[in-house]
Amino acid sequence: MSALDGYVQELEKLDGKICTYGKDWLRTWDMNDETIRSTLNCSWALEELIKNNVSCKIFKSGLGASIFRDNSTRTRFSFASATSMLGLSLSDLDEGKSQISHGETVRETATMISFFTEAIGIRDDLYLGAGHKYMLEVGESITESAEKKVLFKRPCIINLQCDEDHPTQAMADLSHLVKVFGSLEALRGKKIVMSWAYSPSYGKPLSVPQGFIALLSRFGTNLVLAHPEGYDLIPEIIEITKKNAEKAGGSFEISHNMREAFKGADVVYPKSWAPMWISEKRTQQLKKKDYDGLKATEKECLELNKKYIDWQCDDEMMATTKDGKALYMHCLPADISGLSCERGEITNECFQKNRLDTYFEASHKPFIIASMIMHCKCKSVAGAIKGIIARNEKNQEF
Amino acid sequence: MSALDGYVQELEKLDGKICTYGKDWLRTWDMNDETIRSTLNCSWALEELIKNNVSCKIFKSGLGASIFRDNSTRTRFSFASATSMLGLSLSDLDEGKSQISHGETVRETATMISFFTEAIGIRDDLYLGAGHKYMLEVGESITESAEKKVLFKRPCIINLQCDEDHPTQAMADLSHLVKVFGSLEALRGKKIVMSWAYSPSYGKPLSVPQGFIALLSRFGTNLVLAHPEGYDLIPEIIEITKKNAEKAGGSFEISHNMREAFKGADVVYPKSWAPMWISEKRTQQLKKKDYDGLKATEKECLELNKKYIDWQCDDEMMATTKDGKALYMHCLPADISGLSCERGEITNECFQKNRLDTYFEASHKPFIIASMIMHCKCKSVAGAIKGIIARNEKNQEF
Amino acid sequence: MSALDGYVQELEKLDGKICTYGKDWLRTWDMNDETIRSTLNCSWALEELIKNNVSCKIFKSGLGASIFRDNSTRTRFSFASATSMLGLSLSDLDEGKSQISHGETVRETATMISFFTEAIGIRDDLYLGAGHKYMLEVGESITESAEKKVLFKRPCIINLQCDEDHPTQAMADLSHLVKVFGSLEALRGKKIVMSWAYSPSYGKPLSVPQGFIALLSRFGTNLVLAHPEGYDLIPEIIEITKKNAEKAGGSFEISHNMREAFKGADVVYPKSWAPMWISEKRTQQLKKKDYDGLKATEKECLELNKKYIDWQCDDEMMATTKDGKALYMHCLPADISGLSCERGEITNECFQKNRLDTYFEASHKPFIIASMIMHCKCKSVAGAIKGIIARNEKNQEF
Repeated sequence: MSALDGYVQELEKLDGKICTYGKDWLRTWDMNDETIRSTLNCSWALEELIKNNVSCKIFKSGLGASIFRDNSTRTRFSFASATSMLGLSLSDLDEGKSQISHGETVRETATMISFFTEAIGIRDDLYLGAGHKYMLEVGESITESAEKKVLFKRPCIINLQCDEDHPTQAMADLSHLVKVFGSLEALRGKKIVMSWAYSPSYGKPLSVPQGFIALLSRFGTNLVLAHPEGYDLIPEIIEITKKNAEKAGGSFEISHNMREAFKGADVVYPKSWAPMWISEKRTQQLKKKDYDGLKATEKECLELNKKYIDWQCDDEMMATTKDGKALYMHCLPADISGLSCERGEITNECFQKNRLDTYFEASHKPFIIASMIMHCKCKSVAGAIKGIIARNEKNQEF
Repeated sequence: MSALDGYVQELEKLDGKICTYGKDWLRTWDMNDETIRSTLNCSWALEELIKNNVSCKIFKSGLGASIFRDNSTRTRFSFASATSMLGLSLSDLDEGKSQISHGETVRETATMISFFTEAIGIRDDLYLGAGHKYMLEVGESITESAEKKVLFKRPCIINLQCDEDHPTQAMADLSHLVKVFGSLEALRGKKIVMSWAYSPSYGKPLSVPQGFIALLSRFGTNLVLAHPEGYDLIPEIIEITKKNAEKAGGSFEISHNMREAFKGADVVYPKSWAPMWISEKRTQQLKKKDYDGLKATEKECLELNKKYIDWQCDDEMMATTKDGKALYMHCLPADISGLSCERGEITNECFQKNRLDTYFEASHKPFIIASMIMHCKCKSVAGAIKGIIARNEKNQEF
Repeated sequence: MSALDGYVQELEKLDGKICTYGKDWLRTWDMNDETIRSTLNCSWALEELIKNNVSCKIFKSGLGASIFRDNSTRTRFSFASATSMLGLSLSDLDEGKSQISHGETVRETATMISFFTEAIGIRDDLYLGAGHKYMLEVGESITESAEKKVLFKRPCIINLQCDEDHPTQAMADLSHLVKVFGSLEALRGKKIVMSWAYSPSYGKPLSVPQGFIALLSRFGTNLVLAHPEGYDLIPEIIEITKKNAEKAGGSFEISHNMREAFKGADVVYPKSWAPMWISEKRTQQLKKKDYDGLKATEKECLELNKKYIDWQCDDEMMATTKDGKALYMHCLPADISGLSCERGEITNECFQKNRLDTYFEASHKPFIIASMIMHCKCKSVAGAIKGIIARNEKNQEF
C-alpha cells in the first residue's frame, strides 16, 4: 500500500468524527483527537499529491482573506501557498497601525471582507487576552451574517497565531516529529523539552510554547517546560497540558534549569518568549493607545531578558541530550549568536548543524493550513481527497 | 419561471442597447436606462449563480489592476471579489503619497499597467475637479495605446469612486432598494431622503450623495436632499437630478432641515460630507503640494461640521418616518455615536436596529462591479450569462 | 507560414541547447546564443498566442514570489502579468527597509518563500557588488533545499534588475529592435548609441546601460557608449562587451561627447546613471546602516550630474542621426524637461515624437519574463509552446 493509500484509509476512518465542518480552526484544545489526526493525515496526503504534481484545487474561484496584526513573512507565504493550492485568490486586509478594535468595527469589517471569501487567516498574537477574543468576535459576526443570509456561505477562520495558540505551527511541529520518529505512537515516552532561551530582539508571543506543550502532551510524551522564574505561561494552558499528559499516560514537568532539562532529551525546542505580565501590560497600553508606553515596555522586557543571557543552546548542551543527538526544533527565525545578533537563542555553530531540520519543520505549514481549510469547508475530507486523486489533474509536463 | 430566467429574459431585451461595450463605467449619468437596468439584472444573475455555486469566470487569465488614491477596505475587497469571480488576478498600483499627476506621467503609467489587463478600478475621490478628470485621462491614454496597437486590447476602467459619482455604491444602493421594495417600478412615488449628518472623523467626499440622487431621480421617486446651508453639492449634478426627476415624473427638493425631511420618508440615508469649497481648496493645496495647508483645511472642515452637531439620526427622528419604519441606508462605515466616536451620524441604539440592512446593502457591490466589467468587456452580456449557465461549471462539493 | 509557425520552428531548432533548464535567468552573458534566441522566440510566440486570446497557462497552481529591493511600477506589473499568464498566484515579500542581509537570513528566507513557488522575481539594483551576489545566494540556498528534499522542486530566479544586468529590460529592448528592423540579422552594422543623459531626479543604477551594451554587442552592431568622464561602467562588463563585439564582427567604442556619438546613429538610447563610485559608496554606507550618509551621497551625485546638464537629447541632436530619424529608446520613466522635471534627459518636444515607440519597447517585457520562466521550468520550451497551441484553450468570447 502506498503512503497516499494509507492516509486515505486513515481519513476514511476518521471522517464522521470531525468537529470543524462549517466552523473555524482556532486552537488545538478545541479539537477532538480525530480532528487532529485527520488534519495531519490530510496534510500528508496533500504533500504527496503536490509532490506528484497533482492539482489540489477544490475551489474554482473565491477569496482567501488575511488579517495580519503582527509582522509575518513565513506564515504569510504559507497562507498564500495554501490558498493558491486550493484555488483561492488572496486578499490582505491592511489595517494600518495595530489596534484592538471591537464591537461594531470588527463585526462590520468581518462581513465586508466575506462576501466572496472562503477562508480568513488571522494573526493577532502580541496582546494577551485580545487575540483569541478577536477571532471569536470575527467568527460570531460572520456566523450571524451567514444565518441572516447576508453571506451566501460562511468563510472559515484559520488561526495564524493568537495570544494563546499557534496551531499552524504546533501542527507543523507535530507533523515534523511524526516524520522524524515514524508515527504518532512513536512519540510515546519521548522526552521533549520546550525551553525558554535568551533573545535580545523583541518580546515574543507566548503562543508557540503554549501551542506546542498543549498539543504534544496529548501523545504520551514526557514533556518538560523549562524557563526562568517569572516567564510562566498562561495558567489555563498549563492546566490543559497537565490534564492531557495525565490522560495520555505521559508526564509533564516544569523546570527552571535549562541545562538540567536538556539532559537525556529526545527533542529540544529552545525559543524565547516575553514574560506574561509584559504581554498583559501591552494590551492595557494598546487599549489606551499609549504608544510611548509600549516602547518603554519593550525596553523593560529586553532588560529583563538580559538576566538570563546564559539560556543559550550550544553544542555542549546538545551533547548532554539522548545519545548527544536530540532533534533540535525552532519555528524560525531563530536569534543566532554571532549571526543575526551578538548573543541569542543558539550559537551559530550549533544552529548550522541543525539548520536543515528546521527547514523541514517549516515545510509542513502550507499543507497544514490547506488541510485546516479543508477541514472547515469539506463535509467529507476523505471524499475531497479521494475526489482530487480520482480527478488526477496534473500540470502538463513539458 | 425562476428568478434567474427572469434576469436572463430582461438581459436579452436590453442586449442591443448597451452603451459601455469597449468603453468604461464611470458615471451613471453617462449611461442610458438600458445600461443601468442591464447592469442591475446581470448583477442579480451573478448573485444567483454564485449562490448556487456556479463558477462565473469569463477570463482564463489576465489582470485586474487597482489604483486607490484614497483609503478603502470595503471597495478594495469588493473589487478583489469581482476580479476573482471573473477569473482575473489582482494587482494594485501603489503610488505612495496621494497626488494629482497628469499629462505624460498618467498617460505612461496607464499603458504600463495595461499590457495584460482587462479592467482597471480607480478610486480618486477627495479632490474636487480632479478625480473624474483623472479617470478620463487614463481612459484616453489606453484608448490611444489600443488604437496604435501597443495594447492588444483596451482594459475598461471601473470608477470605484471619483469626486463626482460613486457608481458602484449608488448601483449597489439601487439594487438593495429593488430587493427591499420588490421592483424598480415600486420605487415610483417613494419618499427617499439623502441627508447630511454630523461627522467628527474627516471631511468626506461628495460623491456618495451626488451619485445617489443622480441615480435615484431616474425612477420617479420623491427625492429630498437635506443639508445645512453651505453644504451644497456640485451644481451640475443638482441640475442633472432635477431634469431626471422631471423626466421620470418624480420630484426633487432641497431642504435645510433634517427633521422636516425625515417626516413620512420611506427611505433615509443620513451621511456626512464636506462642504464643496473645502474639497475645492484641497485640490488647490494638493496641486501646490501644500501638505500643511491640507491638514489645516481638514481641521477647518471639522470645526465647521460642529455647528451642525444636532444633524444626527436617532430613534425619535426615525419614528416620524412612514409608519415609523423607513429603510435606513448607509454606505459604511458610519460614524456611530458612543461607538466609533463620541457623537456622529447616528446613535448606536438606532444603528443597531438597522445594522443588518446596511450589510445587505453592501453585499451587492462585488456583483455590481463584476457586472460593470462584463458590460464593458462582453459584446453580449445576455450571451455571457447564458454561456455561464450553459457551462454550469460547479465547485465539486465534498 | 504564419509568424507563429516560424517561432515554433526556430524553438525546435534551439531546443536541445538551452542552458537555463532547472536553473535561473540572471545575466545575458551567462547565456549561450541559443538561449537568447530561444527566449526571444518563445516571447514572440506568447505575444501571438495572447493576441489571439489563447490561454498560455502552464501551471495549474503555484506561487510567483517577488522581492523588490528598489521601487518599481512597470516591472512589478510585468512580473504580475507574466505570472498570471502562466497560471501562478503572485505573492510579494515585503522586507520593509532596504537592506543587505546575507548568510543565514537570506538562505532561510529563500527557502521559506519557496515551498509552493515556481518562480522568484528579484530586483536589487542600487548597490554595486551586492545585487547579483544576493541573487546567487538565494539561488544557492534553494538549490541546497531542493537537493536535500526540503523543497519538492526548485523555483527559478528571474533577475528583475541587479547591479550588473537588467536582462528583462535588455531582452525587451532587443525584442523591440528586431520588430523595428525586421530580424536579429538586420542589426548587423547598425550604429547603436547608448548615451548617458542628465538627470536631476536620483542616482540611477548602472544596469540598464550595462545590460544593453553587453547584449547588443553580440549581434554585430556598431555600438557606441557615450558618457562624461567619470561615469564609467563596471570594467568587467566593458570587457565582455568588447569581446562580444569582436567575436560578432561588430565594433564597440566609448565616447565622451554625446553630440558626436549621435551623428549618423540608427538607434539612440539617452539615459542617466550614477557614477560607479557613487553606487559603490552606497553599498558601504548601507552595510553600515549609515542612512544619513546615503542621503548625503545622493545629494553629491545630483550635484555632480549638474556639471553635465547639456547632455540632453533634443530635436537638433536627433536631426544629426541617420536620415535624421534614429530610433529613440528608453526604459521609462524618462526625465522629460519641462514635464516631469525642469531639465532632464530629453526635451518634451522631442520625447512626444518618440513616445509611442517607448511604449512598444516596454510592451515586450511581460512576455520576455514569461518566456524566461518557461526557459527555466520547461524541459522543452518548443514542446510547451506546441502544447499550448494544440490545447488551444480560449477565453469564451461573448
